[in-house]
Amino acid sequence: MCPIYKFPQINLYMSNFCCNFAAKLDNRRKKKPDNRINEEYNIQNILNLITMQKSPLQIARQAYQPKMPVALNGNVRLVEGAATQSVADQEEIKKLFPNTYGLPLITMEPAPGEAKSEAINVGVILSGGQAPGGHNVISGLFDGLKRLNPNSKLYGFLGGPSGLIEGKYQELTAEIIDEYRNTGGFDIIGSGRTKLEETWQFDNGIEICNKLGIKAIVIIGGDDSNTNACVLAEYYLQKQCGIQVIGCPKTIDGDLKNEMIETSFGFDTACKTYAELIGNIQRDANSAKKYWHFIRLMGRSASHIALECALQSQPNICLISEEVEAKNMTLNDIVEQIVEVIVDRSNAGLNFGTVLIPEGLIEFIPAMRVLIQELNDLLAQNEEFATLEGDDAKREYVKSMLTPASCALYRSLPKGIARQLTLERDPHGNVMVSLIETEKLLIEMVSKRLAQLKAEGKYKGKFSALNHFFGYEGRCAIPSNFDADYCYSIGVNASHLIAAGKTGYMSLVRNLTKPAAEWLAGGVPITMMMNMEKRNGKMKPVIQKALVELDGAPFKYFKEHRAVWADSKTSYIYPGPIQYYGPTEVCDQPTITLKLERGAM
Amino acid sequence: MCPIYKFPQINLYMSNFCCNFAAKLDNRRKKKPDNRINEEYNIQNILNLITMQKSPLQIARQAYQPKMPVALNGNVRLVEGAATQSVADQEEIKKLFPNTYGLPLITMEPAPGEAKSEAINVGVILSGGQAPGGHNVISGLFDGLKRLNPNSKLYGFLGGPSGLIEGKYQELTAEIIDEYRNTGGFDIIGSGRTKLEETWQFDNGIEICNKLGIKAIVIIGGDDSNTNACVLAEYYLQKQCGIQVIGCPKTIDGDLKNEMIETSFGFDTACKTYAELIGNIQRDANSAKKYWHFIRLMGRSASHIALECALQSQPNICLISEEVEAKNMTLNDIVEQIVEVIVDRSNAGLNFGTVLIPEGLIEFIPAMRVLIQELNDLLAQNEEFATLEGDDAKREYVKSMLTPASCALYRSLPKGIARQLTLERDPHGNVMVSLIETEKLLIEMVSKRLAQLKAEGKYKGKFSALNHFFGYEGRCAIPSNFDADYCYSIGVNASHLIAAGKTGYMSLVRNLTKPAAEWLAGGVPITMMMNMEKRNGKMKPVIQKALVELDGAPFKYFKEHRAVWADSKTSYIYPGPIQYYGPTEVCDQPTITLKLERGAM
Repeated sequence: MCPIYKFPQINLYMSNFCCNFAAKLDNRRKKKPDNRINEEYNIQNILNLITMQKSPLQIARQAYQPKMPVALNGNVRLVEGAATQSVADQEEIKKLFPNTYGLPLITMEPAPGEAKSEAINVGVILSGGQAPGGHNVISGLFDGLKRLNPNSKLYGFLGGPSGLIEGKYQELTAEIIDEYRNTGGFDIIGSGRTKLEETWQFDNGIEICNKLGIKAIVIIGGDDSNTNACVLAEYYLQKQCGIQVIGCPKTIDGDLKNEMIETSFGFDTACKTYAELIGNIQRDANSAKKYWHFIRLMGRSASHIALECALQSQPNICLISEEVEAKNMTLNDIVEQIVEVIVDRSNAGLNFGTVLIPEGLIEFIPAMRVLIQELNDLLAQNEEFATLEGDDAKREYVKSMLTPASCALYRSLPKGIARQLTLERDPHGNVMVSLIETEKLLIEMVSKRLAQLKAEGKYKGKFSALNHFFGYEGRCAIPSNFDADYCYSIGVNASHLIAAGKTGYMSLVRNLTKPAAEWLAGGVPITMMMNMEKRNGKMKPVIQKALVELDGAPFKYFKEHRAVWADSKTSYIYPGPIQYYGPTEVCDQPTITLKLERGAM
Repeated sequence: MCPIYKFPQINLYMSNFCCNFAAKLDNRRKKKPDNRINEEYNIQNILNLITMQKSPLQIARQAYQPKMPVALNGNVRLVEGAATQSVADQEEIKKLFPNTYGLPLITMEPAPGEAKSEAINVGVILSGGQAPGGHNVISGLFDGLKRLNPNSKLYGFLGGPSGLIEGKYQELTAEIIDEYRNTGGFDIIGSGRTKLEETWQFDNGIEICNKLGIKAIVIIGGDDSNTNACVLAEYYLQKQCGIQVIGCPKTIDGDLKNEMIETSFGFDTACKTYAELIGNIQRDANSAKKYWHFIRLMGRSASHIALECALQSQPNICLISEEVEAKNMTLNDIVEQIVEVIVDRSNAGLNFGTVLIPEGLIEFIPAMRVLIQELNDLLAQNEEFATLEGDDAKREYVKSMLTPASCALYRSLPKGIARQLTLERDPHGNVMVSLIETEKLLIEMVSKRLAQLKAEGKYKGKFSALNHFFGYEGRCAIPSNFDADYCYSIGVNASHLIAAGKTGYMSLVRNLTKPAAEWLAGGVPITMMMNMEKRNGKMKPVIQKALVELDGAPFKYFKEHRAVWADSKTSYIYPGPIQYYGPTEVCDQPTITLKLERGAM
């Protein structure tokens, strides 16, 4: 029997995983999965970093004391609100999470006396992709716990969730913490992409927590990791093993936000870093006056990063995947839209400009999504295809198997992209969408279309294009003051939730468009943010992923202004690099997205 | 008769140009060359920028008052040193520059009284690629001139040297200047790559200068542009037309430096911007622990940018073109060198790292240079080749024509690169070296070699690589305090050289590792920096280009430390973004290259 059936309440959530990977499970349990990540993680690095050479800014930032909500400065009182319910599918979610459903919202209020608790040992996990500020969540958590009781201990599980499963950990002492205050990266304990989804993993967690006397686990991650944090909290409550679980909202993509969570941490710093580069490139474009720059930006699912960067830098064109999908646009529609701006600007004597492209664009083009799905279905574990020799034979095979519509689209794609779609596939045989150089695809198609127009006498300009992709440049940037303050507050706040015995909560810091002192801290039940969604064909309880809302204030602002930005007038803004010192309007601003969403501009 | 023979003293310099392009000359005189650039330049932009929206940092930086050498704060006295001579080929240079050769070095010293001059009209030209700080040279020049006499006027020639030739200009008023203080980019008047080399161009210059009452031209450019500035100065002296010419040392590449010029402006800001990104990527690499990042850096000829970025960020590997050439290394040697580090790190459990690659690398590999030269000779204006259809036919043709050694190298290259070498060529039929994605070439070759080693049981790691190219991100960054101060000082200093009637000089600011107040200002005769070099088969007087010196302090420091940086210990430094405010050690430091060269660290 598949071991997860021992935990019937989360069957639904687990069943697809079970179906797909059941065969591997026993084997994985013996081997303990993701040893690779842990083998790669070298504890020696922690010691090395402590003796590392530092840049002047690294040294200066170590001394920065993050700003915090007033409520977190001293002793706190947890004020509980009314019972909550999930954003949708209340019955199903309640059934799956009988112990963590319906918990009240919590608000931290200042209280007299000194903040104190029993000594508590806590474990912390970094889950998934890096986001600036992760180290500050950990240092805030550390400081919070130590202030509550100097005998409390903080353990870091190494290399992500697998550290919990495999019992790999490091006690985080003051000496180590001090080296990582206000720094970027997740290197303090490493991160990993192992999903906490199976009961044997949860049981392994109990074992190591009991060994270390750990009473609470803090999981710093995105929407999926926080969903899993809640599953874990629920399981531990059911098992009555006395281990609390608290989540923290991380992701540069900005798609973990909702009525309660105003923004995920890291989004601010990453966008500001990309916007710096976009601004610099725009100044270059406006000086050289001869290049169109096509800039792809990380952010797999949602287009929040592209949109925020557009708001900060005002490029000539910014594509928004959610709009492309809503309008059921084809690749050719997108090309026409870009070409129109290029021709207009060229008529005004301006043969240069910038185009921002969200990483996930291609999957939001309905016809492309169908093609990619067909290719995935067709080529995964296709042994006949695997034996074919030569690119041409493979192309012909693919063409012969696609539906007519997808075949036509496939034929229309530039060769290099068609090759990426069919030849470069992940271990499961799926197209690796994030590796597709959409910016080059668009340059090639735009260039071809402009040549046509030129031949027809409808375009007289000169089109030279350069391509860029920004992603890794921003994920580990030194956190902005905003992210440093926000993350530190999230960490300190988590220590109070733990001291009060809470579980199944996400550490919540709100009112973020105000000065940090006015921020509000508390806790939100993770179940409150959940609904049921189809994942790999099965309904599962998940935290709703926040895509760009086409009737939301940020997109509306963009939509109202983009014609002017596209226009012959140069509307570029040059944000420049993140500043940590200087006037508050320069160094303490949240994102424009957040300000627009909160009506603060 | 070719018109340049009217100016016999610079025959040698001009003769090659004359030979190659004599046929086009008359035509060009009529058409006036590079109209394209000027047509693209849209004066409307200046007005637009004045009403443009600005980022908080843009607004804050407008108020920054650059720091200056004490000597430039008030009235100055020009102190002349002994007569100078050129660094080499004194006889030839003296013959070519009878009027500007042997001039004395000039030092600015504080003088009593108020700085005053007659009203002087000055024209300024931005020449070549953008470099952060160009706007500050212009604002310093403006402020200097206006302080000497409020009735002086500054004109900007639009779109580079062609603005002078074609008489396209804009008076730079206080209102315009104020919009561009401490900003990146060359957009205030635009730049261009037209070379000032022909007497008809010079004569056109006289015409427009007379029309505007311009008594001096300031040319802001790299080594070639400054060489041409001196040719222009010499010509105007011979013509006795009363127009002075002053040069200013610009280039992010850092290869315009010598005994007198400590550094070119823009190098500091560009390197710091790239180092920020490299540091962020390194923190990501050290957190994710699964990628090797291959990062190509702009800097066509010399490897100063790569070296400075390495000194700032301490990557695992940094290639230096000048060393590759000196050691007569092959592409395979380079691959082996990288592979060795990857294998060593992998044996220590570290399957990640960073490799910095100077843009010009491929031309410094002796065998590659031969191949590229053969391809250029073979394919330029080769009509037979042009008629061949299909990539394969072209490849076969090329192979049949190359020397055996070049053919073997050509065969060994990955297909994509071989295609770039033969198919993508500039209008003259030459290989476009700057477009060759050396980082991808190396990834492919390293990957292949590692697969071999794995098959032989000599490598057990996992190699996943990502590629980056940084160039346009840094050329127009907001200038660092160093570049803002340095450039402003160069501009103010130029106004004093002009007021004193000097010509054929470069505006000189030295002692740059000291606080700005202690910097020394003056002038260096451009001829002093010249020697004779072969260019396109002819000997010409040129300013020596400064490549990385393998016995210089920066390279020696790098060489002493690189084994440790490559090593399993992580020595990464994370410089973070340029700071304009905050502690002086954070926001006022020059490059490490400069500090090492000047014995200041």
